[in-house]
Amino acid sequence: MTPEPSTVTVADLGEQLLLQRLQAFCPSDLVGDDAAVLSTPPSEDLVVTTDLLVDGVHFSLGLATPEVNTTPPWDAGWRAAAANLSDLAAMGATPLGMTVGLGLPGHLPVTWLEQLYQGLTACLQPYHTPIVGGDICRSSVTTLAITAFGTVAPTQVIRRSQAQIGDAIVVTGVHGAARAGLELLLHPDVAATLPASRRSQLITAHQRPIPRLDVLPLLWRSLAAAAPERQAMVAGMDSSDGLADAVLQICRASGVGACLDRLAIPIPPDLCPWVTPEQAMEWALYGGEDFELVLCLPASVAHHFVTQLGAGAAVIGEILAGTGVSLIDPTGHLPVQCLSLGRGYQHFPH
Amino acid sequence: MTPEPSTVTVADLGEQLLLQRLQAFCPSDLVGDDAAVLSTPPSEDLVVTTDLLVDGVHFSLGLATPEVNTTPPWDAGWRAAAANLSDLAAMGATPLGMTVGLGLPGHLPVTWLEQLYQGLTACLQPYHTPIVGGDICRSSVTTLAITAFGTVAPTQVIRRSQAQIGDAIVVTGVHGAARAGLELLLHPDVAATLPASRRSQLITAHQRPIPRLDVLPLLWRSLAAAAPERQAMVAGMDSSDGLADAVLQICRASGVGACLDRLAIPIPPDLCPWVTPEQAMEWALYGGEDFELVLCLPASVAHHFVTQLGAGAAVIGEILAGTGVSLIDPTGHLPVQCLSLGRGYQHFPH
Repeated sequence: MTPEPSTVTVADLGEQLLLQRLQAFCPSDLVGDDAAVLSTPPSEDLVVTTDLLVDGVHFSLGLATPEVNTTPPWDAGWRAAAANLSDLAAMGATPLGMTVGLGLPGHLPVTWLEQLYQGLTACLQPYHTPIVGGDICRSSVTTLAITAFGTVAPTQVIRRSQAQIGDAIVVTGVHGAARAGLELLLHPDVAATLPASRRSQLITAHQRPIPRLDVLPLLWRSLAAAAPERQAMVAGMDSSDGLADAVLQICRASGVGACLDRLAIPIPPDLCPWVTPEQAMEWALYGGEDFELVLCLPASVAHHFVTQLGAGAAVIGEILAGTGVSLIDPTGHLPVQCLSLGRGYQHFPH
Repeated sequence: MTPEPSTVTVADLGEQLLLQRLQAFCPSDLVGDDAAVLSTPPSEDLVVTTDLLVDGVHFSLGLATPEVNTTPPWDAGWRAAAANLSDLAAMGATPLGMTVGLGLPGHLPVTWLEQLYQGLTACLQPYHTPIVGGDICRSSVTTLAITAFGTVAPTQVIRRSQAQIGDAIVVTGVHGAARAGLELLLHPDVAATLPASRRSQLITAHQRPIPRLDVLPLLWRSLAAAAPERQAMVAGMDSSDGLADAVLQICRASGVGACLDRLAIPIPPDLCPWVTPEQAMEWALYGGEDFELVLCLPASVAHHFVTQLGAGAAVIGEILAGTGVSLIDPTGHLPVQCLSLGRGYQHFPH
């Protein structure tokens, strides 16, 4: 692509040339009609998820104030794709494609938009997932509407409502890293003693989360080996709105309670030097945006599965009869704490 | 649903209650997980289309100036659903579901949103098409992101690129009605002699267009009877961006030209008393938003098909070798006119 001065705007280019530019990111056989046509695997169900992302809420254009721009366009694109792929992973689905709707102010630089698409496609590339269509229109606020769809065998759908009393609660990785990365971006002076490589790892966790599609084949293998009768009954969701939210939502949907072991929750080791244990636990439970999966499995499967997943994965608790979710300290130093919904990010807060 | 004062806003209700309100419009077995799961017919391909609609561009909230509000929320919802169903019809696809993403200012009345959803679901209802998911977030400008998906037998996909030299060009209904309806809304004083019922028909054509999903079974039946070898080779698209645009896009994608007969283009009879023939033809060709289908078929099929469709449907021209699209007057009164792209609505006009 020809390098272009970053001063060329969406309005300079006009709708037709802009569409041509963006179609370069789509497979040529999928665009050019009123809709895209895609083959789906026979006997699989369709899984669909959608997200709307708005400048100033989910990312910050920061065109006027680049110093507070915590999400450059490449990363905004990556995160948008990752969030939707993570929703598919949370259902047990393999991604098939994605559509992108864009509301754009005329003064937006075209380079911003191309970097957004580069981030989107970079995140999709390992999963061979194409952008199959989209729409652009003018808007006073930059808006990104993503719909992702995938397929899943009907026997492998993961649902929030399928947790069974006695299930082990598994997380596929550490929690709190994304929130810590945001802190480092917002307050570059904190954690001055943390080596640069460790800082950038936490910032990457915030800016470029990895959807955990990789865990699905391991999950099916562990289940097939240890508990084939439970393949159609895994409960789970992703932890994009926080670990506490995920466990609470699963319990509410399944009509069960849970008990989490404070010491078992995997927290990034790089938080220790500059964050109190209380703060680290707060970020792990409520920080959100870690995009790990929270799964409820028979204990026999869970331990095998966690071993397969390696670093960061852990059994953090158990599904119980009842309704509440309590956080316990097995050493007895801290009192039992009840988790509650609604401490994460709320649109339209009261 | 309890009647509610129109002063209750999105911010008053808050995100959780708002989600609950909107979920009432979705089948309960489809919401509540990270994504929706849908069964698809075996051996059919998936068809996906997406639209972004923004207040002030595609509809007008008109909260401050209700007198210029040409698209009340119920109609904005209907039109958004109709436009996406029309894209599916243009591909030959049967609708399966729709997702709705909403960017909302806090001051938006909840009743506006519920009327929008009532319009959406009213349009979807005849096709048994559910809203299968969505997303809400705050935004300074009301934004509606729709993704519709459907399925089609691989042998029945309608594409722009499939027009054959010698094909008859068929429209499934009159053109110019939606543009005329808009004129009546913008200038209530024009066409004073037009009876109220005729006025409201034109306004309805603008506010509540019908996606032409009904023509697909008739099309397959006509093709099966007269030209079974052409079932996989129908060219077409919808006329949402104008009839001229549709014919030009099909010709460009198929590498062919076309000739349209000025007298064959079906124009609503109610335009005669108050619009010049030149203006009526301009609206038919470039007005847009009629949401009819423009199809290229063997002549033998076309005439049978048009008879089946009844009032408004017509053969309007023929696909020719070459590249241009000319509009001819068989009586010889008017000179041949060459149609051109880009006279329809452009986002980001130069």
